[in-house]
Amino acid sequence: MKAVVLVRPKDGILDPQGEAVQGSLEKLGFEVGSVRVGRVIDVDVTARDADDARAQVERMCSELLANPLIESVQIQVEPAS
Amino acid sequence: MKAVVLVRPKDGILDPQGEAVQGSLEKLGFEVGSVRVGRVIDVDVTARDADDARAQVERMCSELLANPLIESVQIQVEPAS
Repeated sequence: MKAVVLVRPKDGILDPQGEAVQGSLEKLGFEVGSVRVGRVIDVDVTARDADDARAQVERMCSELLANPLIESVQIQVEPAS
Repeated sequence: MKAVVLVRPKDGILDPQGEAVQGSLEKLGFEVGSVRVGRVIDVDVTARDADDARAQVERMCSELLANPLIESVQIQVEPAS
């Protein structure tokens, strides 16, 4: 079962990569407000059903994929095609 | 106007970060197939409407945010709340 995990820096947490991208976009002539850069992680997980997959991915996040102190996590589970 | 840009390594392109995460998840006892790691970029763009925002973000991708040779891009534009 495929899951998409979006890991983003929380509001208020410094994001130097986002600031660098914002500066570069402005130099290129784009009018942008804030830019934030996070990670998208596509995981193919062996699970009984969508609920099981989501529970497993939540455990993966707390054990490895994200730092809950400074990052927020959004999980989308897609049924296997 | 807010846009979410998902930048992922294309199929067939090596993804060492994804392989490292996959190995770590397996060591933690998770049964996972492939793991791929990309970037999520949240951009607040000044635009007349959603079409203009999408066109600008597409230009940002080709000029800075992604390497079309090895990365695929997915753009979601959300109306400002």
